[in-house]
Amino acid sequence: MQKKYTARGRIMAPSNRKQALIPQGAKILPNPTGTAPGIIWQPDSDITILTFPGVPSEMHRMWEETAIPYLKNQGWGKTVIYSRILRFWGVAESTLAEKVAPYLSLPNPTVAPYAGKGEVKLRVSAKAENPESAEALIAPIVKQIQDIAGLDYYGADSDNLASVVGELLRQRGETLAVAESCTGGLVGQMLTEISGSSDYFWGGVISYDNRVKQGLLGVNSQDLETLGAVSAAVAEQMAAGVKKSLGTTWGLSITGIAGPSGGSDLKPVGLVYIGVANSQEVISFENRFGTSRGRTFIRHLSACTALDMLRRKLLN
Amino acid sequence: MQKKYTARGRIMAPSNRKQALIPQGAKILPNPTGTAPGIIWQPDSDITILTFPGVPSEMHRMWEETAIPYLKNQGWGKTVIYSRILRFWGVAESTLAEKVAPYLSLPNPTVAPYAGKGEVKLRVSAKAENPESAEALIAPIVKQIQDIAGLDYYGADSDNLASVVGELLRQRGETLAVAESCTGGLVGQMLTEISGSSDYFWGGVISYDNRVKQGLLGVNSQDLETLGAVSAAVAEQMAAGVKKSLGTTWGLSITGIAGPSGGSDLKPVGLVYIGVANSQEVISFENRFGTSRGRTFIRHLSACTALDMLRRKLLN
Repeated sequence: MQKKYTARGRIMAPSNRKQALIPQGAKILPNPTGTAPGIIWQPDSDITILTFPGVPSEMHRMWEETAIPYLKNQGWGKTVIYSRILRFWGVAESTLAEKVAPYLSLPNPTVAPYAGKGEVKLRVSAKAENPESAEALIAPIVKQIQDIAGLDYYGADSDNLASVVGELLRQRGETLAVAESCTGGLVGQMLTEISGSSDYFWGGVISYDNRVKQGLLGVNSQDLETLGAVSAAVAEQMAAGVKKSLGTTWGLSITGIAGPSGGSDLKPVGLVYIGVANSQEVISFENRFGTSRGRTFIRHLSACTALDMLRRKLLN
Repeated sequence: MQKKYTARGRIMAPSNRKQALIPQGAKILPNPTGTAPGIIWQPDSDITILTFPGVPSEMHRMWEETAIPYLKNQGWGKTVIYSRILRFWGVAESTLAEKVAPYLSLPNPTVAPYAGKGEVKLRVSAKAENPESAEALIAPIVKQIQDIAGLDYYGADSDNLASVVGELLRQRGETLAVAESCTGGLVGQMLTEISGSSDYFWGGVISYDNRVKQGLLGVNSQDLETLGAVSAAVAEQMAAGVKKSLGTTWGLSITGIAGPSGGSDLKPVGLVYIGVANSQEVISFENRFGTSRGRTFIRHLSACTALDMLRRKLLN
């Protein structure tokens, strides 16, 4: 630890010395990124204790670089567990669980549902002697579940809706522009989180104020007055407008009430219109995400649902 | 639960019925945002069990709205610990820690530094018999630290850079538009995360592709060719262009290389220009956030630093 501090040109505080104290007989579990080391300790022949610092990034690297090889070397983990996460959007967890009910009681691979942030996941997990056998156990089950779920299945593992939509656009050599009102840039942020997204995503307009909807997107001022900014007609004009203004293949728009204020009986919090435009047509979808889910979650659901609507159009 | 499903126009799956089952003698701990309720259960006079669903946002609200009042009412928590988080941007943790060094060894209130996601925080924490006494212990220390930190101090507790900038704009009756390239909508997303932000935030342009920088923001095509999209001149033209196009008091722009690809010796990953325009002047700032910090973190630093630059302009 003294060397680490010297190398960084820093002075080690006396309190850091405590981090270097380890039980007698314990071995150091090295920490390549931080100061506090872990230990590998066998106080008794059938007890092995491994400790790690609490910083997640440090712990992860120590687990992968030292702990796993050590445990494997000690004869642990003769069998491997191999998992795939299947991802679904636009279907309730309980509905999907009922559709794939027979799979949920399989012994190996196992299939378990998870829900989080509006998406539904199924973890398909197999135990076998090596990764290849585990993969072979999983593959047919994954295929069958994908067939049952149809378009509700959107991707697996590290996929997200933005990456899946991006891949579809890339394959077709098409481009996208977004017009965002209540999400304020969230869809653009999700799309550009992916390196290389400039191949298909050109940008868009954050039309938070109605003057921007009129000025930059060409939304009809009469419609804004009579139908309101949160309406199917305005969503469609936003999508068509941003497509035209940027000259892309597709235009995707969102206008809604994220709350907590701004709702009414006729147009409650959670009411969100999504518009999709291409050269053939302009369509819109009405969503009611509920009045009590909170601003952040309604915006997240709006952005993901917009990407999902575009995904379904791209696949049809 | 049946009512909740009916209100949302959905059909409750049989599997959801299980969520409504609670132990005999237990009371419901209501879940205002989700379906699964928690319980408050005293199976024995000296055992109290509270359960919550695993979804963090649901659990948080249930803890704050029902569990805390219940526990206080039961006589828990005779002394209170009251904390304030002071937030700083644009200063290194070690630099701030040295400036406030004498405070870090106080016994009550205690002052402890934290760093996270590019910002530095100081937690000032007092123990007392009631919230008022704790607050009285904390107030003078907070004031002294704010004076020492000057403009590097930006807010406290639930403040963030977007909310602080928004409050300053609101006080001055001024409006803001953003032009985002490498952040792709992140600044707009942060600003609109705050309910009521439509009072000062009008929207903006996501100019991910150079054609959008030219077409919607009026960036000079020669400058894009000779100086490149990631340059002080383009940042300034983006800020001035979005201000003019939307007709706001302020224009704020970001253009940079978020990586991991796209960097060069002359313009490495992490090079980000921020532009700020008002009716008097257009200025820009060069930032080098480092080549190894990853796309997500560079984008986060870019967005926060842009908001911080605007904050400093608004305060000067």
